[in-house]
Amino acid sequence: MKRILLQIIAAAATLHAAAQTETPTYLNPGATVEERVQDALSRMTLHEKVQILHAQSKFSSAGVPRLGIRQLNMADGPHGVREEIEWNSWSPARWTNDSCVAFPSLTCLAATWNRDLATLYGDAVSEEFAYRGKDIMLGPGTTIARMPLNGRAFEYMGEDPFLAGELASGYIRAAQANGVACCLKHFALNNQEVGRMTVNVNVDERALREIYLPAFEKCVKKGGLWTIMGSYNKWLNAHCCHNDSLLNGILKREWGFDGAVVSDWGGTHDTWQAATGGLDLEMGTGTDGKTTDKSLGYNTYYLADAFEKLVREGKVPMSTLDDKAARVLRTIFRTAMNPKKAVGSMCSEAHYEACSRIGEEGVVLLRNKGSMLPIDADRYGRILVVGDNAVRNMSEGGGSSELKTRMDISPLEGLRAVYGDKVDFARGYYAGRALYAKADKLDPDSLAALRNEALEKARQADLIIFIGGMNKNGYEDCENSDRKSYDLSYGQNELIEALAAVQKNIVVVTYGGNAYATPWLDKVKALLHCWYLGSMSGQTLADVLSGKVNPSGKLPVTFAREQSDYPCFRYGAEGYPGVDGQVYYKEGIYVGYRWFDTKGVEPQFPFGFGLSYTTFKYGRPRLSADSMDAGGKITLTVDVTNTGSRKGKETVQLYIGDEEASVDRPDKELKGFEKVELEPGQTKTVRFDITAEMLSFWSDKTHGWTAEPGRFKAYVCASQTDVRGTAGFSLH
Amino acid sequence: MKRILLQIIAAAATLHAAAQTETPTYLNPGATVEERVQDALSRMTLHEKVQILHAQSKFSSAGVPRLGIRQLNMADGPHGVREEIEWNSWSPARWTNDSCVAFPSLTCLAATWNRDLATLYGDAVSEEFAYRGKDIMLGPGTTIARMPLNGRAFEYMGEDPFLAGELASGYIRAAQANGVACCLKHFALNNQEVGRMTVNVNVDERALREIYLPAFEKCVKKGGLWTIMGSYNKWLNAHCCHNDSLLNGILKREWGFDGAVVSDWGGTHDTWQAATGGLDLEMGTGTDGKTTDKSLGYNTYYLADAFEKLVREGKVPMSTLDDKAARVLRTIFRTAMNPKKAVGSMCSEAHYEACSRIGEEGVVLLRNKGSMLPIDADRYGRILVVGDNAVRNMSEGGGSSELKTRMDISPLEGLRAVYGDKVDFARGYYAGRALYAKADKLDPDSLAALRNEALEKARQADLIIFIGGMNKNGYEDCENSDRKSYDLSYGQNELIEALAAVQKNIVVVTYGGNAYATPWLDKVKALLHCWYLGSMSGQTLADVLSGKVNPSGKLPVTFAREQSDYPCFRYGAEGYPGVDGQVYYKEGIYVGYRWFDTKGVEPQFPFGFGLSYTTFKYGRPRLSADSMDAGGKITLTVDVTNTGSRKGKETVQLYIGDEEASVDRPDKELKGFEKVELEPGQTKTVRFDITAEMLSFWSDKTHGWTAEPGRFKAYVCASQTDVRGTAGFSLH
Repeated sequence: MKRILLQIIAAAATLHAAAQTETPTYLNPGATVEERVQDALSRMTLHEKVQILHAQSKFSSAGVPRLGIRQLNMADGPHGVREEIEWNSWSPARWTNDSCVAFPSLTCLAATWNRDLATLYGDAVSEEFAYRGKDIMLGPGTTIARMPLNGRAFEYMGEDPFLAGELASGYIRAAQANGVACCLKHFALNNQEVGRMTVNVNVDERALREIYLPAFEKCVKKGGLWTIMGSYNKWLNAHCCHNDSLLNGILKREWGFDGAVVSDWGGTHDTWQAATGGLDLEMGTGTDGKTTDKSLGYNTYYLADAFEKLVREGKVPMSTLDDKAARVLRTIFRTAMNPKKAVGSMCSEAHYEACSRIGEEGVVLLRNKGSMLPIDADRYGRILVVGDNAVRNMSEGGGSSELKTRMDISPLEGLRAVYGDKVDFARGYYAGRALYAKADKLDPDSLAALRNEALEKARQADLIIFIGGMNKNGYEDCENSDRKSYDLSYGQNELIEALAAVQKNIVVVTYGGNAYATPWLDKVKALLHCWYLGSMSGQTLADVLSGKVNPSGKLPVTFAREQSDYPCFRYGAEGYPGVDGQVYYKEGIYVGYRWFDTKGVEPQFPFGFGLSYTTFKYGRPRLSADSMDAGGKITLTVDVTNTGSRKGKETVQLYIGDEEASVDRPDKELKGFEKVELEPGQTKTVRFDITAEMLSFWSDKTHGWTAEPGRFKAYVCASQTDVRGTAGFSLH
Repeated sequence: MKRILLQIIAAAATLHAAAQTETPTYLNPGATVEERVQDALSRMTLHEKVQILHAQSKFSSAGVPRLGIRQLNMADGPHGVREEIEWNSWSPARWTNDSCVAFPSLTCLAATWNRDLATLYGDAVSEEFAYRGKDIMLGPGTTIARMPLNGRAFEYMGEDPFLAGELASGYIRAAQANGVACCLKHFALNNQEVGRMTVNVNVDERALREIYLPAFEKCVKKGGLWTIMGSYNKWLNAHCCHNDSLLNGILKREWGFDGAVVSDWGGTHDTWQAATGGLDLEMGTGTDGKTTDKSLGYNTYYLADAFEKLVREGKVPMSTLDDKAARVLRTIFRTAMNPKKAVGSMCSEAHYEACSRIGEEGVVLLRNKGSMLPIDADRYGRILVVGDNAVRNMSEGGGSSELKTRMDISPLEGLRAVYGDKVDFARGYYAGRALYAKADKLDPDSLAALRNEALEKARQADLIIFIGGMNKNGYEDCENSDRKSYDLSYGQNELIEALAAVQKNIVVVTYGGNAYATPWLDKVKALLHCWYLGSMSGQTLADVLSGKVNPSGKLPVTFAREQSDYPCFRYGAEGYPGVDGQVYYKEGIYVGYRWFDTKGVEPQFPFGFGLSYTTFKYGRPRLSADSMDAGGKITLTVDVTNTGSRKGKETVQLYIGDEEASVDRPDKELKGFEKVELEPGQTKTVRFDITAEMLSFWSDKTHGWTAEPGRFKAYVCASQTDVRGTAGFSLH
């Protein structure tokens, strides 16, 4: 080894002396990324090209030290920078400079329906990554919410590909402008956590193209995405981290993605498939267990020595190696060696402010009987806060996206800051791990005592604010497991009913990344769903409850009345969680509101629904023409007026239905949205351009998008079911 | 805490919104460092200013995360980048991307007498620091070699302040041009390791100014030094890390140093002294032991919460805080946030080449009877290599400067690469820790067996290459202890004599950072001293022994015949290692060759001595004038001719003696040197400009430098004792 090294050095020394006179192109920040990539490639040995295709530690991949090409540092997102862990283990490295701002969960961002906030989010969170020296943020996620128990839903952006794609692509553009690559997750069809490492997803072509891929495609094409993460599951019986059809066929050839496909940690299974199936950067694979020298472990990766052997033997063409290396180099020159990479910052005022602004617009007011909210402190003597979530950190869900937050305001802290000594607290229930694990220490008597204490105090209170929902502790909103039930757990339903029975002034606040059943809805005055609100969680909640902030969030997922109303549960275990490693998406394109709307199933709260402390009146929608051809457009305008007495924001939603389709299509689908802020009495005109692209469906005959001539109807809505006006038009 | 944070955030949010429109000056890479410092200062809270004045981990200090001001990452030098250790412990972090090139020891660089190699060294080593994301390199060191047993001498640059200062300042300029700050060590008077944490050095004013400080001063003024490290020991009974006279008086006010004084790790002892004694950045202090929360530990530092309290109470003026913070900020903008900071590289061909070039010119040929060297392989059938150091890594000494080298060629490997199968090996002795610790496992019988094996093989061999000297394993060349004896240890002297008795063809090669006794000198044919030669150690040795490289190193330290010949040992324990925590430098200015020369003590090998495989003839020195005034100069020129048959390099040394001094002065002192390369028969003219500055001494009456009119003599020398010509002149 030393001899070989010496020969290399001797041979290269001459070259070096000759080349030393001017800066090589790959080190010239003024050259284009492509020029730098090609120049770097031309100087690298075969071994060096292979070395950049796999991890060198848990969260980094090697650069080319000899040439001064930097390594890639990665960290989990998408809600903030994950803490440092050890080089080669999952144990925290116990640094003290890595506590960060937790931003609201991505589901909360989706609930804002606000493209400007997506930009603000991407910019702010990527500044924290840049300051921590990270080049790739593992996130955001645009996996579609097919199944309401998905333990990871809080990291994604709801059930509609248009909404998810619009917001995720804006987040990505803003983040990448700071020289931090986004690694979009999880590509593709990773719609459940149960069985995620092995399940093969059977989905029809139209559902794949119309429901599960468009948000990813928009992030590639409109977001300018630099890296993407393959998912653990299979499609067409091939793992998605090295799936030729998905990665080479659709992503790279069809969409023109020129960045790097990164495996999920442990998502690579085979050298041959990794070599030929479109994977560029292998991360998190366990070593083979045969080596005791851990530093050798990374060379046992599939895309390491074994891959190098295939290339050297001519079994994999050199062009395949060069293509993978070029994609990783492109990522390096776009991030670690990008002369415009931001310095970034951590825990700045601007970041906390961004956290608040996103949270404030993401909180969804689902019920407000008799204008119960906002809560006027003067009206109540004693305010009792009940619920385990009131004293937990409600910044985030669990799993890889968990954060070491520098500041994390709990709901109770937030309420006490506004309502002071009026606030009393009773836990009421305990969200330990009892339901799903054996770690819970509380016995039945203790749980009964908690409940009795809450009921006792409730009788003395003038107002109850129940703060519950889901959390990461019980493996409800947490990677690697799905919820076990659509109902709230830990006896919350019974507790809410019991509290409502003794005190009619009861406001329910829930945190959580997903929809759930609300059987007690008629018995409570108000209901607010908060997702996870990041570091400022408790303050944001208090600002909404107290009226300092007028809520304007709208649901990015449908809340069904019962679990069985969701289409994925209608086909037994084959529909979820799968049988013998196979799951069948038998509902096809009828996911989320497309199902409820088209099949006439009444939801509890529809997609796009959310109340305000003020009211909005919509005018009649106006079309600029009543017909268009395939290259044309029609402009729809509609006036919206704030008819209440408070300033507020309203998201106007445009759905379009195909009245004469040759194939089965949903009654209507989201094709546009605009959020407007209105002073009391103010009117603004909202405008949408309708193009043929918005009318098209995926044809499984032509294997492409088709907009069929015929009649269409535009629906202007305040929620998916709250149609405020319609207008018909034709496509020639 | 949270409430306070919220208030800060609320207050600052307004400011932020207003300021957001343009890049603030401190983030503008086009602004000057000073503009950036002042702008940053104006935006920082008092607490933030204090937070950047102390460590946040073992090897980093905090930046200002809120403002996007980067932290400072430090690593031990000076011979390469130390491996990563854990955040808050000395355990290796077990990363695998931190193996580096070891460059030759700084003593070896001093032995090259080559300013170009100092530049090459600083440039190459700092590229490795830059690639590893380091902002401050802890090194180089210009502590003067007062005492030949100093365990850390290998990290320093010999006994002469002119030689050390010339080379160190060149190293620093080159390193800092890459945006990596040097932290010059150890300021000041850290001339021994025994008692280093507590000893108070008593030194007269002239010795301080003429011997111990000038190299540091040159690094500040000519090197443009950015940071400096206080030493552990005391001067004037105050620890040098917070010593008002040394740091505020001499360094900052007198020399105009505008950078940061960094404490040695654990060298800070008191908040008040740290506050007022010139320390700017406190590193490595143990926490108070009272806190169980390790993350709180760094706030218990002397320059942390306790200092902040003094400032808030008005006991330390705000200007003191601002000055310290400005010095640290200056360092940040010069390094971590320097737009021209190099990308760097690791283990490049150029770095190995630099390692070789420096090593090749640093090896000193001390004896070569009958042109024994170079070794012609054809002349010898069997070559026996004897010695423990032949199979040890001879890249570096021990302690904080130890490195995780990517490649480390042992002497035996290097010789086998050149002489192949002719080379046999016998260890001969074992340099375990037996002499100084109890870890040695070898019993007397085993040691005798090693020795007998070597002697047995010696009888069969045609040539013996003995490879011994010192090493880091036995705590000889290792931080935190001094050698116990001037003799070679582990029975090497006896072994060499025994080997020489059976085989007259014997070449002795020693590694080590210092001088040592050579009682067997007359019995060996050749002697080569190698210092430590970095990653290429064995190859460099082989290249010199085989004649591929013609040695040109000259000693930067005097080799005395006996330990007692050194002046520091002439005054009992008071001279070294000190009594009752006091050490007295009673020899005053008579350190190194100044003692031997002036007092007529014959050295074994004088300062500046080193042989070549060729020979050089010096012409008569010529002066441009025979007198000058204080503002003038005289040019001395001398021709040097290669009178042998090989190309070679010669270092011409200029010494000057004051013939009529009113004070005691050394007979002559080094004032210039030039290294020239000459083909066989070639002559070059070497030129020195003599100025009044070179004639001056430190007056303890005027407390300044004085050049007294009178007669001086210039000595052109091949070594300190090998005077090739003289020329007298006058200063009016």
